[in-house]
Amino acid sequence: MNEVIQQIRSHRSIRRYTDDPVTREQLESIIAAAQAASTSSYLQAASIIRVTDPEKRSRLVELSGGQPWVGKAPEFLVWCADFHRHRQLFPEARLGYTELLLISVIDTALMAQNALLAAESLGLGGLFIGGLRNHPDGVADLLELPLHVAPLFGMCLGHPAEDPILRPRLPQALILHENCYNPDLDHELLAGYDEEVRHYYAGRPGADRVTGWSEQVQETLSREARPHMRDFLQSRGFGLK
Amino acid sequence: MNEVIQQIRSHRSIRRYTDDPVTREQLESIIAAAQAASTSSYLQAASIIRVTDPEKRSRLVELSGGQPWVGKAPEFLVWCADFHRHRQLFPEARLGYTELLLISVIDTALMAQNALLAAESLGLGGLFIGGLRNHPDGVADLLELPLHVAPLFGMCLGHPAEDPILRPRLPQALILHENCYNPDLDHELLAGYDEEVRHYYAGRPGADRVTGWSEQVQETLSREARPHMRDFLQSRGFGLK
Repeated sequence: MNEVIQQIRSHRSIRRYTDDPVTREQLESIIAAAQAASTSSYLQAASIIRVTDPEKRSRLVELSGGQPWVGKAPEFLVWCADFHRHRQLFPEARLGYTELLLISVIDTALMAQNALLAAESLGLGGLFIGGLRNHPDGVADLLELPLHVAPLFGMCLGHPAEDPILRPRLPQALILHENCYNPDLDHELLAGYDEEVRHYYAGRPGADRVTGWSEQVQETLSREARPHMRDFLQSRGFGLK
Repeated sequence: MNEVIQQIRSHRSIRRYTDDPVTREQLESIIAAAQAASTSSYLQAASIIRVTDPEKRSRLVELSGGQPWVGKAPEFLVWCADFHRHRQLFPEARLGYTELLLISVIDTALMAQNALLAAESLGLGGLFIGGLRNHPDGVADLLELPLHVAPLFGMCLGHPAEDPILRPRLPQALILHENCYNPDLDHELLAGYDEEVRHYYAGRPGADRVTGWSEQVQETLSREARPHMRDFLQSRGFGLK
């Protein structure tokens, strides 16, 4: 396994950080890595808001459902789908298509993954904060996002003060298909995976939650999934048509 | 610059390949790297269809707008948003929310970026094929995708038989904001970037298209952007509510 793949495969979400700052040079290097990702039709339909203001950070903790690391991480970046720039450049731009939502979400996610890997290669750790989508309108107001800009997720970064174990992923046979989709779930393989996931949770400090993957899926998908998101995105000019 | 960041920053789309195959071991390593990405609520809402059947490849060339590398690349992967697995496991799953579209698109894109970087670290090259969204219904039929599975993009992989130069990205100052979004486009900075982009195109073999970034944005966004995508996604169970 080469160094890059080793780096990629050693990813864990880091929620606790030392007080050491991320340097300006590191941040620039992380953003440059982000920008090196592929971009659909060369649109580069993403922006990043770095939040350093302590009051705004406190507010983001609330808006993301009370995640303390959003306030405490040395760096917090908000990743946004962005067609404002394009609109400014070309006021007649035909926006609002669902396809442009996809393009900007994919562009932004590719960039963010590059950024996280670059940060990890510098000895930093971090995690994605999807919880920003709990109150996306509050986030948009707080960061003064114009029309055609929508916050997608946050990212905490800092020097790790914890060393968690890796969370197991689905067996390759359940996610990789050849030539056509295999619709039949291999329940035996899944049962083995559920056991592996339970073992993972049992081994965590505190072992506060010991469940398989299947139980977590049921728990998550028995709830409504942020039912405000469609209206929110449409109010920002995304996914209207 | 460390090895990982160097790898990330040296990305270019590769469209021409030698006849050397991607080995089974390399493919497994690439998929394992993909799966190491963060996943929202641990849902792992993605699947990958590896297309090896030459007839299906030929059809995918047509469906993606006649891109020959889709047929010729040693490997072609179709990356899909996927809640079929979850639905099989838990028939009462509350699906159809726009939020779940976002989750699955972000999950899939993070995985795909890891995969491409892992491939590049192994000496391979590749590119994303957003053109699959020209005829997503045709792709879904061809690959027998069930309800709750939607193809997002393809990925060609193989040993590079070309060595293109890097395509310049927007200046950091235009995409990175601090504490609030700066809505005023710096036209001077943009003019310098447009000049850099023209210089890039002039330096390419053939120099068939010499335009700035601004002109390309205008050209792209003066057209309708795949206006079928909203209906397509809804027909697959995504973004209904």
